[in-house]
Amino acid sequence: MTSKFAKRIIPTALLASVAVTTLLSGSIVNSAPKAEKKQNPNEIRNVIFLIGDGMGVSYTTAYRYLKDNPATPLMERTEFDKYLVGNQMTYPEDEHENVTDSASAATAMSAGVKTYNAAIAVDNDHTEVKTVLEEAKKQGKSTGLVATSEITHATPAAFGAHDISRKNMDAIADDYYNEKINGQHKVDVLLGGGLNNFVRKDKNLTDLFKKDGYSFVTTREELLKDKNKQVLGLFAPGGFDKAIDRSPQAPSLEEMTNTAISRLNTNKKGFFLMVEGSQIDWAGHDNDIVGSMSEMQDFEKAFKAAIDFAKKDGHTLVVATADHSTGGLSVAANGKYNFDASPIKAAKRTPDFMAAQIFGGADVEATLKQYIALDLTAEEIQAVKDAAAKKDKDATGIDNAIEAIFNARTNTGWTTGGHTGEDVPVYAFGPGKERFAGLIDNTDNAKIIFQILKNGKK
Amino acid sequence: MTSKFAKRIIPTALLASVAVTTLLSGSIVNSAPKAEKKQNPNEIRNVIFLIGDGMGVSYTTAYRYLKDNPATPLMERTEFDKYLVGNQMTYPEDEHENVTDSASAATAMSAGVKTYNAAIAVDNDHTEVKTVLEEAKKQGKSTGLVATSEITHATPAAFGAHDISRKNMDAIADDYYNEKINGQHKVDVLLGGGLNNFVRKDKNLTDLFKKDGYSFVTTREELLKDKNKQVLGLFAPGGFDKAIDRSPQAPSLEEMTNTAISRLNTNKKGFFLMVEGSQIDWAGHDNDIVGSMSEMQDFEKAFKAAIDFAKKDGHTLVVATADHSTGGLSVAANGKYNFDASPIKAAKRTPDFMAAQIFGGADVEATLKQYIALDLTAEEIQAVKDAAAKKDKDATGIDNAIEAIFNARTNTGWTTGGHTGEDVPVYAFGPGKERFAGLIDNTDNAKIIFQILKNGKK
Repeated sequence: MTSKFAKRIIPTALLASVAVTTLLSGSIVNSAPKAEKKQNPNEIRNVIFLIGDGMGVSYTTAYRYLKDNPATPLMERTEFDKYLVGNQMTYPEDEHENVTDSASAATAMSAGVKTYNAAIAVDNDHTEVKTVLEEAKKQGKSTGLVATSEITHATPAAFGAHDISRKNMDAIADDYYNEKINGQHKVDVLLGGGLNNFVRKDKNLTDLFKKDGYSFVTTREELLKDKNKQVLGLFAPGGFDKAIDRSPQAPSLEEMTNTAISRLNTNKKGFFLMVEGSQIDWAGHDNDIVGSMSEMQDFEKAFKAAIDFAKKDGHTLVVATADHSTGGLSVAANGKYNFDASPIKAAKRTPDFMAAQIFGGADVEATLKQYIALDLTAEEIQAVKDAAAKKDKDATGIDNAIEAIFNARTNTGWTTGGHTGEDVPVYAFGPGKERFAGLIDNTDNAKIIFQILKNGKK
Repeated sequence: MTSKFAKRIIPTALLASVAVTTLLSGSIVNSAPKAEKKQNPNEIRNVIFLIGDGMGVSYTTAYRYLKDNPATPLMERTEFDKYLVGNQMTYPEDEHENVTDSASAATAMSAGVKTYNAAIAVDNDHTEVKTVLEEAKKQGKSTGLVATSEITHATPAAFGAHDISRKNMDAIADDYYNEKINGQHKVDVLLGGGLNNFVRKDKNLTDLFKKDGYSFVTTREELLKDKNKQVLGLFAPGGFDKAIDRSPQAPSLEEMTNTAISRLNTNKKGFFLMVEGSQIDWAGHDNDIVGSMSEMQDFEKAFKAAIDFAKKDGHTLVVATADHSTGGLSVAANGKYNFDASPIKAAKRTPDFMAAQIFGGADVEATLKQYIALDLTAEEIQAVKDAAAKKDKDATGIDNAIEAIFNARTNTGWTTGGHTGEDVPVYAFGPGKERFAGLIDNTDNAKIIFQILKNGKK
């Protein structure tokens, strides 16, 4: 790889001929949707693209070990396993780094363009590149972004905004409001965290969205009660709590996915929806096997919701993949030939949660006993006490000490607090799924989806 | 998983009906091979099954980073990449361990039976289970085993022998000679290391093989000169040196593969060949990125040789996969978003080789400079000097110090000296390749190949 790379050629070339054919296929759908269904099983009306952030092969495998029923001879397959079609290369086109961040990878998957780390749907020249979400909107489809991070975080941002840096989350929130296609807001359904990026000193974007007809909701209950086709749901100031720590006030990723689908699916022209399991990666950065597996479960349920819809619908392509792997997670470590998932099942909260309690003054032993259904050894408890006794300026040391208990008991290995470059799995279901088979590049996702949007079929 | 598991049911059931149909398809091939070729593109006459021992997804990805041409914008695909069809689960059926060893995994792939770690084609009750190599031989096909370990090592052994423990390599060599099918030796071509398991105090198996018509060769030159259909080639007392360290007297895995194919292919009924890149794993155990990538290259060339043959032949199924991953290798580590393969390219020998030289009295700095084309820092050289100064009883400490230089410079991560449980990639080419697509279990390899042997087609 060199740092210079022929950019935007394929997407631009594709898009030149998109508008006409799409209007055609749109009108066919509108005039006779039922007949069309029977006549053309290859028709693809909806695309649901799910990204397990950081969900490398070691994560999907570790999750299978976790879900295994010990009472049966064989290891049960996860929802993902049933739909594996291949793997994906994730490398970026960055002058200094050859392992991707989430922004570059998401731009590759949203726009078909390799770019530098931190880029939000801009190429190496900082030129904005068109995303599949934008193309879908241009064709009159409905669009949605769902995440458990801030909805302005790198992955969703690269589908619905443009910025030279992922750090500019306020500007990304502005893009969601300001950037219009055919006079309409670009994203009809925005569900995630990041209230702080919308309600700011300089402006309140939620009021503006409301003025333009969007519902604005901040709790699970409000979300599930609301039926508006356009909705902005912001359920946390920043990112969500991890699934295992989440308050009942916040929706699950599955609930957000289902409610997004039900709104988007009212558009006869179809929809594009991106769903991110955002914090598999965050737990991986933290080398936290409890948190990552809890997030894997949240993501698996959302994936199943998408598959279930697609099975009923018949004209929906579902693709799930990861942007990269995180943490150098390995299934077993330290010379042991055993990955013991039972300590993960014994955790009622993440180490982060417990560490925050202890850092806030809670008793070490009582906290550990409350949230970990294991007979901890005196040494394990003492290690956490020692970390707490250091009176650090934050809970990191305590968190690390609790994570160490789980890593040692499960034989979980980690090599980094950052990302790793190994290929990640690709899952697909529905018409067109075979196009994602084998080893694909992350840019292929967008290239194929652009073609599907153009042709309206596989 | 429980430790009890319904065993041998599928292979046995399959095999009951194999003999008749196979004799039929064999005679069809004999009477009109050329016409048949055109009439039945689905016919599968030969199966080449390649195992990259320890070759998890992080190995195939790291190898792509290594092979990347920096002068081109995109990362070049490896030979493997072109043929990816999915991934494979590797877990064993062992009472105490849920991460596999090579013996259990090889038995799963050779016989379709999950078993305990260390089992060589026996199940959890220590009952011998039939292997695909044996079934091929029963049908009159020719058979071969090729490896860069001892040819009696776990992986090849599980295709051509039976033992309650992989440790019994002498008994496994005996099996190769004693166990006959239809009055014939089971394996026609045996190429690898392990001379010491054949030439022993109690007997010399090489003489016995020669008496029965086998050629016996011990150098590359002898191997390439010999044209006998049956050959025993033992090119090292134990395992081979790693490819980068290998003397010109020893053949490459590619040469062994090609010469095996040319002999086996003289049988009109076809052949079954297992080829193992044995020491990707050994280097992984050692956490040696130089050695593992050198072995990856050796294996890639052998894989390409198999593919090239299959492309010409038209009736050969090639499958390549791994038995497990090793070492918890990660592509980047320690918070760095860069996997720098250039230090690997700068190595002229493995750290093992250099360490042996130094342990044998060679000067530290001179040795490092001779075999590593990098400007090493004073600290790097000093670390190796410090290790050498400890006068340990073996070269392990020196080896580790040299490996540490490569791991740090490349940002290679490792979590274990053992195996890890994550899914491994599956590559396939030729008729029947689609049967290996998606997520398969390691036992599926044998189950599918048994069916192919039974039907003579995909």
